[in-house]
Amino acid sequence: MGGARQRVDRRSVTGRAFAVLEAFTPEHPVLTLSEVARRAELPLTTAHRLVAELCASRALERDGDGAYRIGLRLWEIASLAPRGVPLREAALPFLEDLYEVTHENVQLGVREGHDVVYIERIAGRRAVGVLTRVGGHFPLQASGNGLVLLAHAPEAVQQEVLEGPLERFTEHTVTDPAKLRRMLAQIRRDGFAVSDRQVTVDAVSVAAPIVDVRGDVIASLSIVSRAGGTVVERLAPVVRAAALGTSRALSSRRHH
Amino acid sequence: MGGARQRVDRRSVTGRAFAVLEAFTPEHPVLTLSEVARRAELPLTTAHRLVAELCASRALERDGDGAYRIGLRLWEIASLAPRGVPLREAALPFLEDLYEVTHENVQLGVREGHDVVYIERIAGRRAVGVLTRVGGHFPLQASGNGLVLLAHAPEAVQQEVLEGPLERFTEHTVTDPAKLRRMLAQIRRDGFAVSDRQVTVDAVSVAAPIVDVRGDVIASLSIVSRAGGTVVERLAPVVRAAALGTSRALSSRRHH
Repeated sequence: MGGARQRVDRRSVTGRAFAVLEAFTPEHPVLTLSEVARRAELPLTTAHRLVAELCASRALERDGDGAYRIGLRLWEIASLAPRGVPLREAALPFLEDLYEVTHENVQLGVREGHDVVYIERIAGRRAVGVLTRVGGHFPLQASGNGLVLLAHAPEAVQQEVLEGPLERFTEHTVTDPAKLRRMLAQIRRDGFAVSDRQVTVDAVSVAAPIVDVRGDVIASLSIVSRAGGTVVERLAPVVRAAALGTSRALSSRRHH
Repeated sequence: MGGARQRVDRRSVTGRAFAVLEAFTPEHPVLTLSEVARRAELPLTTAHRLVAELCASRALERDGDGAYRIGLRLWEIASLAPRGVPLREAALPFLEDLYEVTHENVQLGVREGHDVVYIERIAGRRAVGVLTRVGGHFPLQASGNGLVLLAHAPEAVQQEVLEGPLERFTEHTVTDPAKLRRMLAQIRRDGFAVSDRQVTVDAVSVAAPIVDVRGDVIASLSIVSRAGGTVVERLAPVVRAAALGTSRALSSRRHH
């Protein structure tokens, strides 16, 4: 740690300010000033100045105990991310319909590097347990949404993921690159993906791609259900229909 | 504009980088570099450097046409805002229940200055039209959620809002400060607020406060329905129950 602080800091001021914001994580959403400095690898004086500036812009908020949190103002601006709220708003009526019809977990994800990021989630309270949260990450290669997004990712991204390491979550997780490559081809042919107990031992997810006006896959929509029986036969048509509906809704609204 | 650019810019680098982010609005979610410079009141060279740095941090994304948008990475970080996603996650099961029971518009808001900011919205597709969007603002004094948040705001905030000007949206909007003050007292006594055609001429909203573990009102939850009949009598109990349920769910989960 001491060594890290002695290095020449090549980050721009903006980069260092962003490092302060990135110090906050789902596991650490509330930080003291010294925690911010340590996690962002900044001298305390620099961290102090940047935190004060970010509070002035309301990107951070200070609570009654003197600790810091991400501010609502940052959330307001970030809600303009086209892959965030606008996608979510187009998809939400279809997600609600899926939830009302199935009462299972319904999820909407996009690809960010080698991960799926969850944009929306409607969690059935009596449904099978899932690992996701909105704004959370998960490796592409295991979940239904991840498999759809990987199957339609650029060849270079697929290659990098297949070269591994491929993390194993259950005994059903596919970690053989050749087998995974065949699965991806199948997903492109079928128009949907199935993750059968590859993330948790009691859950199966069925996912279908959402395409933009150019036909590029930009997101994926899934239902997670308890494994067993005819769950895939039952869920695949309704998931595919909801993904098609969302794609159509996205193409009919343009953001300029 | 030229005059503005000649002024000494007293903003910090962080403040200027934040001004770049704030150049993006719901009306202008996609901007060229020169639009960013003009809207953030920055010289083109400064805007160019800050935009490049924000792209490197993935706070901004550049699209195929060379225009810029808010990046998904910023949204991921911003989703940690305690008044954003965590509140929403606690409330969402209750919002879904409200939607399933009523099929009306269901809204969750918090106070930011003199405005209500909408954290979540479930819009019934066959329900009455509403003006809100997630991440959007509306003056406190007119909507059901706004009235709840104003009724429980610090006395200084109430005073500032009552001193006006109080914007009129319909002929039913209350713009008399004395009458509005009596309404706020009534809301505190009743435990819920009614906005009867005060925002749009065909809608009534019923809202109830969400309290944190200390008993402070931190958010408000509402249903917007078509005006008329026994809508308030029918909706008030179910809205109040959902707000109480959300308050209880919030108190049982702590974010550290």
